[in-house]
Amino acid sequence: MALQTIEWKNDQIKIIDQTKLPLKLEYLYIRDLKGLWQAIRELKVRGAPALGAAAGLGVYLGIKDSKAKSHAELKREIERIVKYLATSRPTAINLFWGLERMSGVVLKNKDKSPDFIKNELFKEARKIIAEDKIACRKIGLHGAKLFEDRDAVLTICNAGILATIDYGTALGVIYRACEEGKRIKVFACETRPLLQGARLTAWELKRKGIDVTLICDNMAAALMKQGRVKKVIAGADRIAANGDTANKIGTYSLAVLSHIHRIPFYIAAPLSTFDLSIKSGKEIPNEERPAYEVTGLFFKQPVAPKGVKVFNPAFDVTPQQLITAIITDAGIIKPAYKINIKKAFKNAHQ
Amino acid sequence: MALQTIEWKNDQIKIIDQTKLPLKLEYLYIRDLKGLWQAIRELKVRGAPALGAAAGLGVYLGIKDSKAKSHAELKREIERIVKYLATSRPTAINLFWGLERMSGVVLKNKDKSPDFIKNELFKEARKIIAEDKIACRKIGLHGAKLFEDRDAVLTICNAGILATIDYGTALGVIYRACEEGKRIKVFACETRPLLQGARLTAWELKRKGIDVTLICDNMAAALMKQGRVKKVIAGADRIAANGDTANKIGTYSLAVLSHIHRIPFYIAAPLSTFDLSIKSGKEIPNEERPAYEVTGLFFKQPVAPKGVKVFNPAFDVTPQQLITAIITDAGIIKPAYKINIKKAFKNAHQ
Repeated sequence: MALQTIEWKNDQIKIIDQTKLPLKLEYLYIRDLKGLWQAIRELKVRGAPALGAAAGLGVYLGIKDSKAKSHAELKREIERIVKYLATSRPTAINLFWGLERMSGVVLKNKDKSPDFIKNELFKEARKIIAEDKIACRKIGLHGAKLFEDRDAVLTICNAGILATIDYGTALGVIYRACEEGKRIKVFACETRPLLQGARLTAWELKRKGIDVTLICDNMAAALMKQGRVKKVIAGADRIAANGDTANKIGTYSLAVLSHIHRIPFYIAAPLSTFDLSIKSGKEIPNEERPAYEVTGLFFKQPVAPKGVKVFNPAFDVTPQQLITAIITDAGIIKPAYKINIKKAFKNAHQ
Repeated sequence: MALQTIEWKNDQIKIIDQTKLPLKLEYLYIRDLKGLWQAIRELKVRGAPALGAAAGLGVYLGIKDSKAKSHAELKREIERIVKYLATSRPTAINLFWGLERMSGVVLKNKDKSPDFIKNELFKEARKIIAEDKIACRKIGLHGAKLFEDRDAVLTICNAGILATIDYGTALGVIYRACEEGKRIKVFACETRPLLQGARLTAWELKRKGIDVTLICDNMAAALMKQGRVKKVIAGADRIAANGDTANKIGTYSLAVLSHIHRIPFYIAAPLSTFDLSIKSGKEIPNEERPAYEVTGLFFKQPVAPKGVKVFNPAFDVTPQQLITAIITDAGIIKPAYKINIKKAFKNAHQ
């Protein structure tokens, strides 16, 4: 059965509860904004593109039963919703991009009735979902060209079906290469502390019959030194105008190691993950998450002494110099990124 | 109370059961060779220098009740014991070094009675322990000179009290620097899959009142990029004649990252960790450990899909080019390692 990470169903948001994987494929129906906010914060739904969809559906969920009688009233309500959802997670730009698209619908329809606008919001949310499905397949199509039969590919976190609507960005490239008949061997970094690589990536690759081997994050370098990694590919949570890329903590480490071992390092992401309003990665806010994710959460019992200090950043920033190419729905972007990112956006909007 | 990782007590080997930490400080009395073999394999006692002591006490434990009537008979029994203990773990040279020292005692006393030799073996085992205590303090003394007040130091795995008799190699350097009044901030990599950094290093540093912050292994690079790591120090399981160093998986990764971020990278180990019989790290055997250490062991429930392939090497090799200096009980060895290691051994044996 084909998976869909997030969708609108029975007047609610239906998501795969990713905290239950790999043990159970369990769906969760979300009825209100608070439920959505918590699902995002607790990573029941995660992945930059999936968060874009969550933003779209979330705004509609929050407004669909509104009693607002005027455009102004509806607009104020939506502003409140947008503000609230924006506090759920700070780094992935797609969340804000999705919220902005929904806000744009309200602004564009100043002279329309609340009911009309609600309907337009619903259409916009569904459009975000439909567009992501297409974008991921385009990323796959472009990216697969970079991969050869019998390539061994290392990836981190989960940039697959479960990070998007139904196909993936980094893993979408791998899926497409496999669909083209290429035999790809994947090494999945487990991705501490929340183990998205072990729990989600290994799960969805195995489900698709793709050859996957799980490693701990600190084993990637040894594997590279042994010549067993031919390419590295990761997703992105936010890409600055110069190509600097925020992604799951550990990505920067892999980029440095790839550089030293002369292994191509690719980022795969839709244009919606770019934030052209910021010049470089320095301006990307980084979420610091609670200590218990490192010391407790998945464990039978605490694995560190009580009260120990913990540093637990959710993301790091990979400088553009370390990125071989960025695979997008608008094609493959290569250095010089500042110029070529601008060009890609210009072409895409023509 | 001062800790002692391994000692002879009540005619048995008494160890701290390190699999119980950080929750409980529990001691285990080992009565027979099989028990010791399992304790080593299951990492109840671990750390290269501690394994040297385990080898010494182990041979004595195995021979003390021997009914051997001649030197030849005793020698055969000891050869069997040595052969058996040597199969427990393949990488840390100190285990083999300890076994060899014990074998040497038998060879040296060809004309002596079994009882005399047993007594000599007991003395040799205790000597290994006494020498380690001194060696670690010398390592601390030499190494502390490299550290300044307010240094922030990153370390991996556990090269502390729990890896030696009672002081540590890499952590011994930190203990000594702190004893000299330097304020040292330590970042401990949790060290997947067996979490020796979280369970052991954070525990013993905290117990000593040293400022320690726990991170996941994949966070080290980001921390370095932020300029928050001034030095990196790790222990060693085996050092080749050219300085190539086998240590816990993830050490090589840190060495590469230190190199790129221009951070000094130190190895701390006693001379007993050097294996001059091998030219380079290529010849060091690497232990591959079972998949469940990555997917199950510490977790409430499996964190990866059932039957997923896992790559779980226990060690990696850091090429000597990436090592700023090797801190030993015979002083600090700097490049060119091939020459200077030879010199250090020559001076030590004069």
